[in-house]
Amino acid sequence: MKAKPETKIIAEPGRTDVSVVREFDAPRELVFKAHEDPELIKQWLGPKKYDMKIHYYNSKSGGAYRYSVVDKSGKTVATFNGAIHEVTAPERIIQTFEFEGLPQRGHVTLDCTTFEALPGNRTRVTVHSVCRSQADRDAIMASGMESGVNEGYEKLDELLTKL
Amino acid sequence: MKAKPETKIIAEPGRTDVSVVREFDAPRELVFKAHEDPELIKQWLGPKKYDMKIHYYNSKSGGAYRYSVVDKSGKTVATFNGAIHEVTAPERIIQTFEFEGLPQRGHVTLDCTTFEALPGNRTRVTVHSVCRSQADRDAIMASGMESGVNEGYEKLDELLTKL
Repeated sequence: MKAKPETKIIAEPGRTDVSVVREFDAPRELVFKAHEDPELIKQWLGPKKYDMKIHYYNSKSGGAYRYSVVDKSGKTVATFNGAIHEVTAPERIIQTFEFEGLPQRGHVTLDCTTFEALPGNRTRVTVHSVCRSQADRDAIMASGMESGVNEGYEKLDELLTKL
Repeated sequence: MKAKPETKIIAEPGRTDVSVVREFDAPRELVFKAHEDPELIKQWLGPKKYDMKIHYYNSKSGGAYRYSVVDKSGKTVATFNGAIHEVTAPERIIQTFEFEGLPQRGHVTLDCTTFEALPGNRTRVTVHSVCRSQADRDAIMASGMESGVNEGYEKLDELLTKL
């Protein structure tokens, strides 16, 4: 039996960025596709108890996206949007990210996701998020992002075995 | 005779961001328009000795842009592109920014421009740029951005008197 994959979340004190590093037991092209194709993204992104509803997702350089996390009755829990700076298969996706539920707009992050091929058809995914302030970064860390990220990646593990 | 407006560039050591603060002798709506409308942007952005050639500029939330700085013979000097996260008139524009001339892609910044109305129909513009690393920030500071920004804002002073 394999060890459960570990998600490393690196957020050094006094900085404005956070890195999330996770390995997947699937080839880079497939892991990239699961991050690029909205029909696949909606099958794994976010906490297990919620579903994802996509308002629009134009997955290309110069594109944009907006989606909501909804509960099992269809009620919206949270909505997020961003602009897509770069989609370069199978290497890199760079986009902005904003949670629409804050009292003020403008707390945007710049997220760069890189996909690194590892021996044995495995892939390392690194999401480097840069915030506009240390307070923004710390608020994200305190928001429960860790469990959401972990649960999403567990769903992605399962999805990748089916693709 | 009025004092020449001062552009403040704030880049504290050890940080990954830079702020540019400048006041303009024009109302906020007009200063915002000069930052939003590509036909106006191309009349002032960048150093005085170059012109700006717009490849595309979809100035809206979820839009994108790409432009080149060209010399007087039309030869391209540098090209930049980005995705536009938010355009909220007359308050705020948030977008990504990348210089295409670097050996590697991915050195993207997240730029938030805010427009603040001041007494006497004046406007304060603050551009807060967040880089993905301290090295990226320091490279931008060393690139001659200061003279380019100053010259662009002097062209904008002139343009605003005509609008």
